[in-house]
Amino acid sequence: MAKLWGGRFTKGTDKAVEDFTSSIAFDARMYAEDIAGSKAHAKMLAKQGIISQTDCNDIVAGLTDIQKQIEAGTFDFSVALEDIHMNIEKRLTDAIGEAGGRLHTGRSRNDQCAVDLHMYVRKTVVHMGELLVNLQKALLEVAEKHQDIIMPGYTHLQRAQPVLFSHHMMAYFSMFQRDFDHLPLIYKHADVMPLGAGALAGTTYPIDQAYTQELLAFSKIYENSMDAVSDRDYVLEFLHFASTVMMHLSRLSEELIIWSSTEFGFVELDDAHCTGSSIMPQKKNPDVCELVRGKTGRIYGHLLGLLTTMKGLPLTYNKDMQEDKEGIFDAVDTLHFALSIMADMLRQMKVNGERTYAVLANDFSNATDMADYLAKKGVPFREAHAIVGEAVQHCIQNHCVLLDLTVEDFKKISPVFEADILEAITIEACVAGRKNYSGTAPECVARQRQVGAAQIEEEEAQLATWADQLGRV
Amino acid sequence: MAKLWGGRFTKGTDKAVEDFTSSIAFDARMYAEDIAGSKAHAKMLAKQGIISQTDCNDIVAGLTDIQKQIEAGTFDFSVALEDIHMNIEKRLTDAIGEAGGRLHTGRSRNDQCAVDLHMYVRKTVVHMGELLVNLQKALLEVAEKHQDIIMPGYTHLQRAQPVLFSHHMMAYFSMFQRDFDHLPLIYKHADVMPLGAGALAGTTYPIDQAYTQELLAFSKIYENSMDAVSDRDYVLEFLHFASTVMMHLSRLSEELIIWSSTEFGFVELDDAHCTGSSIMPQKKNPDVCELVRGKTGRIYGHLLGLLTTMKGLPLTYNKDMQEDKEGIFDAVDTLHFALSIMADMLRQMKVNGERTYAVLANDFSNATDMADYLAKKGVPFREAHAIVGEAVQHCIQNHCVLLDLTVEDFKKISPVFEADILEAITIEACVAGRKNYSGTAPECVARQRQVGAAQIEEEEAQLATWADQLGRV
Amino acid sequence: MAKLWGGRFTKGTDKAVEDFTSSIAFDARMYAEDIAGSKAHAKMLAKQGIISQTDCNDIVAGLTDIQKQIEAGTFDFSVALEDIHMNIEKRLTDAIGEAGGRLHTGRSRNDQCAVDLHMYVRKTVVHMGELLVNLQKALLEVAEKHQDIIMPGYTHLQRAQPVLFSHHMMAYFSMFQRDFDHLPLIYKHADVMPLGAGALAGTTYPIDQAYTQELLAFSKIYENSMDAVSDRDYVLEFLHFASTVMMHLSRLSEELIIWSSTEFGFVELDDAHCTGSSIMPQKKNPDVCELVRGKTGRIYGHLLGLLTTMKGLPLTYNKDMQEDKEGIFDAVDTLHFALSIMADMLRQMKVNGERTYAVLANDFSNATDMADYLAKKGVPFREAHAIVGEAVQHCIQNHCVLLDLTVEDFKKISPVFEADILEAITIEACVAGRKNYSGTAPECVARQRQVGAAQIEEEEAQLATWADQLGRV
Amino acid sequence: MAKLWGGRFTKGTDKAVEDFTSSIAFDARMYAEDIAGSKAHAKMLAKQGIISQTDCNDIVAGLTDIQKQIEAGTFDFSVALEDIHMNIEKRLTDAIGEAGGRLHTGRSRNDQCAVDLHMYVRKTVVHMGELLVNLQKALLEVAEKHQDIIMPGYTHLQRAQPVLFSHHMMAYFSMFQRDFDHLPLIYKHADVMPLGAGALAGTTYPIDQAYTQELLAFSKIYENSMDAVSDRDYVLEFLHFASTVMMHLSRLSEELIIWSSTEFGFVELDDAHCTGSSIMPQKKNPDVCELVRGKTGRIYGHLLGLLTTMKGLPLTYNKDMQEDKEGIFDAVDTLHFALSIMADMLRQMKVNGERTYAVLANDFSNATDMADYLAKKGVPFREAHAIVGEAVQHCIQNHCVLLDLTVEDFKKISPVFEADILEAITIEACVAGRKNYSGTAPECVARQRQVGAAQIEEEEAQLATWADQLGRV
Repeated sequence: MAKLWGGRFTKGTDKAVEDFTSSIAFDARMYAEDIAGSKAHAKMLAKQGIISQTDCNDIVAGLTDIQKQIEAGTFDFSVALEDIHMNIEKRLTDAIGEAGGRLHTGRSRNDQCAVDLHMYVRKTVVHMGELLVNLQKALLEVAEKHQDIIMPGYTHLQRAQPVLFSHHMMAYFSMFQRDFDHLPLIYKHADVMPLGAGALAGTTYPIDQAYTQELLAFSKIYENSMDAVSDRDYVLEFLHFASTVMMHLSRLSEELIIWSSTEFGFVELDDAHCTGSSIMPQKKNPDVCELVRGKTGRIYGHLLGLLTTMKGLPLTYNKDMQEDKEGIFDAVDTLHFALSIMADMLRQMKVNGERTYAVLANDFSNATDMADYLAKKGVPFREAHAIVGEAVQHCIQNHCVLLDLTVEDFKKISPVFEADILEAITIEACVAGRKNYSGTAPECVARQRQVGAAQIEEEEAQLATWADQLGRV
Repeated sequence: MAKLWGGRFTKGTDKAVEDFTSSIAFDARMYAEDIAGSKAHAKMLAKQGIISQTDCNDIVAGLTDIQKQIEAGTFDFSVALEDIHMNIEKRLTDAIGEAGGRLHTGRSRNDQCAVDLHMYVRKTVVHMGELLVNLQKALLEVAEKHQDIIMPGYTHLQRAQPVLFSHHMMAYFSMFQRDFDHLPLIYKHADVMPLGAGALAGTTYPIDQAYTQELLAFSKIYENSMDAVSDRDYVLEFLHFASTVMMHLSRLSEELIIWSSTEFGFVELDDAHCTGSSIMPQKKNPDVCELVRGKTGRIYGHLLGLLTTMKGLPLTYNKDMQEDKEGIFDAVDTLHFALSIMADMLRQMKVNGERTYAVLANDFSNATDMADYLAKKGVPFREAHAIVGEAVQHCIQNHCVLLDLTVEDFKKISPVFEADILEAITIEACVAGRKNYSGTAPECVARQRQVGAAQIEEEEAQLATWADQLGRV
Repeated sequence: MAKLWGGRFTKGTDKAVEDFTSSIAFDARMYAEDIAGSKAHAKMLAKQGIISQTDCNDIVAGLTDIQKQIEAGTFDFSVALEDIHMNIEKRLTDAIGEAGGRLHTGRSRNDQCAVDLHMYVRKTVVHMGELLVNLQKALLEVAEKHQDIIMPGYTHLQRAQPVLFSHHMMAYFSMFQRDFDHLPLIYKHADVMPLGAGALAGTTYPIDQAYTQELLAFSKIYENSMDAVSDRDYVLEFLHFASTVMMHLSRLSEELIIWSSTEFGFVELDDAHCTGSSIMPQKKNPDVCELVRGKTGRIYGHLLGLLTTMKGLPLTYNKDMQEDKEGIFDAVDTLHFALSIMADMLRQMKVNGERTYAVLANDFSNATDMADYLAKKGVPFREAHAIVGEAVQHCIQNHCVLLDLTVEDFKKISPVFEADILEAITIEACVAGRKNYSGTAPECVARQRQVGAAQIEEEEAQLATWADQLGRV
Repeated sequence: MAKLWGGRFTKGTDKAVEDFTSSIAFDARMYAEDIAGSKAHAKMLAKQGIISQTDCNDIVAGLTDIQKQIEAGTFDFSVALEDIHMNIEKRLTDAIGEAGGRLHTGRSRNDQCAVDLHMYVRKTVVHMGELLVNLQKALLEVAEKHQDIIMPGYTHLQRAQPVLFSHHMMAYFSMFQRDFDHLPLIYKHADVMPLGAGALAGTTYPIDQAYTQELLAFSKIYENSMDAVSDRDYVLEFLHFASTVMMHLSRLSEELIIWSSTEFGFVELDDAHCTGSSIMPQKKNPDVCELVRGKTGRIYGHLLGLLTTMKGLPLTYNKDMQEDKEGIFDAVDTLHFALSIMADMLRQMKVNGERTYAVLANDFSNATDMADYLAKKGVPFREAHAIVGEAVQHCIQNHCVLLDLTVEDFKKISPVFEADILEAITIEACVAGRKNYSGTAPECVARQRQVGAAQIEEEEAQLATWADQLGRV
């Protein structure tokens, strides 16, 4: 069919070029935003007398009808029509005639496609917020449910000091809290209206951007039209947010995979989140965790991809920017699954507290406490450290652990030891003793859980505020 | 439906998990490889007496039938069946009964999915080679067609010295030549058979890997079964190849975009490769070039994504590796379009030799030759450089160029100049004078074109050899 | 020398390992933070009675002395001592004896190195803010200085519509404004104190984290000790900020490079920001712009590098995390130079307004306005677009532009044209007519400049608040 | 000081710009290549009569002297002189006078800096080859030393089937073999001489590129001068090679970290390759492994950084390309350490074969063999799989393993079982039974080791050939 921009052209577009440049296969996802943006634009044009009220009514009704067709699955998308905007506009013109053509007055595809993506990202921020809150709630539930379980804490994947399992879970709570912290800025930068920028310089029509802004519930209008059609910062910010979320999930996944190994045996994931092997009947594989960890790569790839695409582009719009959408769409889908399933998985996993306790009873995680004991009795810490280091070495050679030593054994190591050393290095004492603000002692973790619950309330309040705003569109 | 690995499981898979872990949406692309691999495996099992000849015949006939259904578009893929392998195996078993179940004897999904990807990549290498050769031919044609056109050569996007347009084109020929150089190693690493590795350790069945190798026309068998199921190097190599191809294409695209600007005006792309603007009637945008340049980002992203995914994975197979396919599939599609369309675009573009010559007549691209003139008469080069630098500065202030100077003017600049300076700095002389091996003089570029034609013949011979091998499958 | 953790070890560290694992070559940069953190820790230990006031005084005096040595360049850093923390601690112990060893009480290298990096990033945020403000001021000055210059606005590097040069500059102002918007979150996440986390679980000493927090002027303490030593989100956030800043700078650089070409000739950069060629006397290369554009790659690389490093790391500290520093240090240096020099370069560049106007007088940038003219007279826009498209095509064939047409010519094109068409498509009218909120009309850009000045004031107020807080350390 | 290209400039370079654009801090590393290249160029100029033999002799002697100064550490590098080339040339001119200035005849900094990097990379390829061979030898030694050790083989970090520890090691041997396979192409693309390309177009001097080629022992000359100064493909190829090497090392490191955990306890790294904790006396951390794994990120970052830098650069040289060196230099240093230390670490680590055997005796790694047993007796594999799956489930509930079952127990599970089942599922039988080509049976792994030894011989022959060629420079 004839392109709408064909005037100065003497030849049609090559078919392969059409396929290569068409974006309808993925940007159809933004149909609702495109229709909402067009309705608001039409109403503004009518209010300003640029088009008639009748035309406006026809346009709005026509668009409503098209939305119904799309949602009913009866709309036939065309690759030759390039993108979602042209697909809808062409259908509209077919349906209501010449008035459809007037919809594009005072608007360009550059500001139109920008406003669609802005609305999509703004809406998506809320969706991501809900998923994060759900996961944080799951972590809080798990931390509460298993609040008595003690496990080895690790540095360098070597056992370091005993910690509460719930303390470990709350560390992840904090990570996702920081991820949530990214959302307001993404929302702020998405919540700026580019409509009115035209192709790049504004428009000669007496449009009223403030009215369109109100109809689409945007908090701000772009100050500068050239920036409005060239800016993809909010997409990059979303992809960076997605990358850190996936990074955090990959760490949690790695731990669940390690903890699910026979050697660790700390947790058992529910059958619903594992798969088996086609030839090894004994296998129960933590596939979901592996896939979440593995999908971290693709999200990093989307971030880098768009950063690369945007590098060195002169103002204003360049076709390169069409590459802004597939990455974020895939990131949204990936996060949706990964965050939801991770929450379910945590809620349903079994934690083997007997096992985590048993391994502690058989290792040296309490060595720091033994050194602290000496130091508190006046031995310089570096000397205490060396004494305990040798005691550990001695135990390893004798196949025992510090908990196996008697008071006499301790006295032989250093005369500073007294009978209370036995109590000072029990697993429970190791945990209970770390009672500073951010420490692992039960009352500290209980405090963290309370703070966490309060943070979730704040987040939910924020989400509700955004939902209110979006409800005004 | 019941999973084939469900024995030790007490619960089914979560529906969201099923959607998340399923790969059928993209790995269906490898149906032909999966079927070829299964046929070869079945024949080997029969030859070794592990299954009966009747079973083998049923399996082969059943698979042939399935392939026809897929190619006819009547095969109904199921997400619950996870991947292309299970979709085909289930359908086979439904069609031919118990014999279908025997196909999996002595094989695991791990080596099965590896062999499919190996065959896919091996085949794709040939496809990429053909596309590169086609583009190189286009460059050669363009270089021949416009062999008389002289244009400014640039460093730092500043005019530097006159060059032949064909010399500039042949620089790209060399880049794509180096890209072709990557193919043999990718082919070599793809052309190694993983079948027989089983899940990771080999199999207890008396299989004959050499026979399967012969049927699938593989040049080698993996030495080590654990490596066979863990290796994705050949995919990374492909993605690195794709990244450098796109990098080269992005440079060519950038130049075509700059040359198409009104300010440069060196080339005019065919209407078929440009698009217009919905509101600016005068626009003719080099969309294809921009999109090729922009898509460079996504390909880099795929490379980084898989590198990230593979980082730190313990042996052997981990579900993370399922992420190996989408990136390469998208890279193949992107390269297919980008390489084909670029070749067409070059063949159809107009080069404005009058314009490129006119700008040279009005600038300082011949300044080096003026300095060389002095140096050859014995002026130390650094001094000659300084003299010409001042002459240029003088001309700029007087709104003229070196070609406007008279012999007298030159003598005022330096007494070393004689009448032959006028001839020494003509545009033609600048080009003709650079006649060393890799220089821009017409006879040098003609030599390059001859070498290029010979290289294409070698490449085509290589492609034919590979095609022969693949024809034996 | 003997390692401080050597107790259970029977063998020393390999020399190559020492070189490989040592970080002193780059982390020496954080000496001031390390010393400030140690002083605060010592004072807290004394306040809590964990060490004596005398020891505290000795420690503080010893550290002050070490800082003087470092700043005087007389401190001899040792690779064998691994990192800045051990270098300082060893020197302190050499100087003041046993008291030096007590400094490490209730602290681990894990929380110590974390607090150093937190303080470094917090301070750096302010530095970056100052650089951004300086660049924004330069843009504002340039926009004001050249407020009357009209130039072609581009999409697809094709001339689209006339814009004010100052409008173009203000688009970059907005980009750097959004970059500044990233700083509060980075600051917030850096402004959280990890001290007290110990190795991972807190400490058994009766420390007072609130007091250390006050001495180091941190707004918050980490809720969770395991998170405190595992978190590098704030570094990733900084690197993402740095990546978008470089992306924006790369776009500006690209434009300056293109505008500096002979073909465009829109700007002339000051000699101080260009370099010449060793053999081409006429060359004046925009090296700084190219280097800024080129260095975008390394910053993206740092972001991706750290994201990759953090992927899949189990809690809590792993040695991999030592890789957190070199990237950010290099990013800080790169941004420092790039932002400062870009501001200078803008302030000193010449803008050739005659040239930018002349090219407009000779092209079709006013085609949209011609179409708008028709549309406002009732011609459907799509039809108007087609009419103008043909007129452009006609002009191109006749080597003229729309501004060359007479009223009669226009009437031949369409009877709708009247005499006022000549006025409607002058370059000045094109600019003046785009007077909607974000448009390019002079009064709109003046408004943007006012808003910009107010934003700078807000930013400076923010920077002052932070500086106040940092002054309390 | 006065820049050598200052002629048309009226102003000096800004000091900050000088610092920003200077590369001497890192490119000094290529001094030997720069001097060798200059000597060859001078000899060629003399041979062609472009400079006198006396000048040539002075130049060669002067350069020899400068090289001695640099190697003695007495050469004072200057930032103002920008790069290694200018530093050396200026010193030469200071020392030998005007003849020094003639060295630059028929050469540009563009082809000079390109030839230096080509020679550096070419030499480095050999160095990397030696490091890979050393690591492969270490793997071979370890595989031979521990050839009797059986360990669990894993998929999804779940125990899958027993494998030989040596089989596991040989999987890494294969990976590094593929890495070595990359070297010939990098070498080939580095082994092409750019000298003679001049700034971009060749030179008007009657140079003899073939003679310079011979003196510098290059196998080829660039066909095209514009390509010669624009090409950085060989650097990208090196960085991709480095990325896959690091990826492989990161996998090995991850496994060593996991195997060193108390929970696994499969290996003990030598004290020389571990570090301790400043507060936890019991800790022995696999720091080197973690650092190797962590440094994978920076190498990926270098690859992506340069790919990004090269994207969209118009021909020919642009200053952006100065970014080609720091990444590769850092990659070379990182690989040097990582490959060397990994080889040492493997040679010195203890493998706990009793532990790896003991865990197998207590798990279900032999489940596949039980299913195979049934299948070989005629039970369809899918049914056999299900039977064993239930048996495993039964054992788990009864806290036993398959090896604990009696013949009677087996018969209860399925009447197909006979007395030989007990023998069929011993750990030794599981390993010995997988005797197909790439399987884990002892004779198969012995074969792999023989193939590996032969491959090392081939590699060493290749390295010797290259060393011969480089010796001719």
